Amino acid sequence: MLYPEPMARLMAELGRLPGVGPKTAQRLAYHILRMPREQAQALADAIVRLRQEIRYCSRCFNLTDVDPCRICQDSSRQQDVLCVVQEPRDVMAIEGTREYHGLYHVLHGALSPLQGIGPENLRIKELLSRLQHEPIQEVIVATNPTVEGEATGLYIARLVRPLGIRTTRLAQGLPMGADLEYTDEATLAQALVGRKEIS
Amino acid sequence: MLYPEPMARLMAELGRLPGVGPKTAQRLAYHILRMPREQAQALADAIVRLRQEIRYCSRCFNLTDVDPCRICQDSSRQQDVLCVVQEPRDVMAIEGTREYHGLYHVLHGALSPLQGIGPENLRIKELLSRLQHEPIQEVIVATNPTVEGEATGLYIARLVRPLGIRTTRLAQGLPMGADLEYTDEATLAQALVGRKEIS
Repeated sequence: MLYPEPMARLMAELGRLPGVGPKTAQRLAYHILRMPREQAQALADAIVRLRQEIRYCSRCFNLTDVDPCRICQDSSRQQDVLCVVQEPRDVMAIEGTREYHGLYHVLHGALSPLQGIGPENLRIKELLSRLQHEPIQEVIVATNPTVEGEATGLYIARLVRPLGIRTTRLAQGLPMGADLEYTDEATLAQALVGRKEIS
Repeated sequence: MLYPEPMARLMAELGRLPGVGPKTAQRLAYHILRMPREQAQALADAIVRLRQEIRYCSRCFNLTDVDPCRICQDSSRQQDVLCVVQEPRDVMAIEGTREYHGLYHVLHGALSPLQGIGPENLRIKELLSRLQHEPIQEVIVATNPTVEGEATGLYIARLVRPLGIRTTRLAQGLPMGADLEYTDEATLAQALVGRKEIS
């Protein structure tokens, strides 16, 4: 194909993004070509600035542009509850509920022997250090309800409980708006096992 | 939401791209955050370079990084056939067939009274100038088989024919691999009207 080199280059770079195939890369490149120049520059700047200015919070390992992050700095939050999640996006998801007002700890992954990810690859050592130095009363394990997430949650619970700290995990069951007929068996089984008294 | 500002900024810029909603913008931003730094820089550079180095060929108005473009410069191509298309991507599509060896002229759009696009908004004046100064024997009208594309093609044919230049258009009919049962009526009607003798 006879794409001019700068066009071919951008299409190749865009094609490395997740979910962007050759056709999408082409469409995006044409769009960028027709954008106002300032807007294309703003996009390029935002990419560079992201990589320059975002780092991990040295306390909770969430993404941040200040260290410690704004959540860790916020003294109005409960200082004795710690929610352990796999990824920074999980922090955003939980913040979105406006139901949680404690602190976080981001593991950056889940245990996965098949992928060679062991406890030393996650921020577990740092978690234990926090539990020794901070007045945490409860650890909420909010790993994903997957094989890896569950295994990671159990591993952490086993480390935390001997410290005399309450260890809980997110409830599992039917999602809001679900239809029993179309709910997978594993979820339905969890919902049955975890059934609650109607008060 | 508590996104650090550089993250929120990039998500906003990505969200302006076509087909990129908030969830996709978030996914892409996280991906860019985890890319090797050189790769993120390469993506940003490619965006800026595209806008700096790509312009329109002063002869055929295709996208190019040299002027005249590589197709216009290629003296091994037929110099007496001119294919008129709506968009630069149409040039790429036709080049992809390897069936065409003449020159191009990119209109940059189609007539659309509803959107206020008239002949003066397309590269039609430049087309007529080329027909006067270049030894063109045939103009292939390769606008899209849509209402606007057809109207544009007819408009151009009416201007070109009086110059004594052969004017043709792309064949219309069933696409390869089509199934009669699932072919829309307009296409089927075109295929009937344009039926050819089996020789």
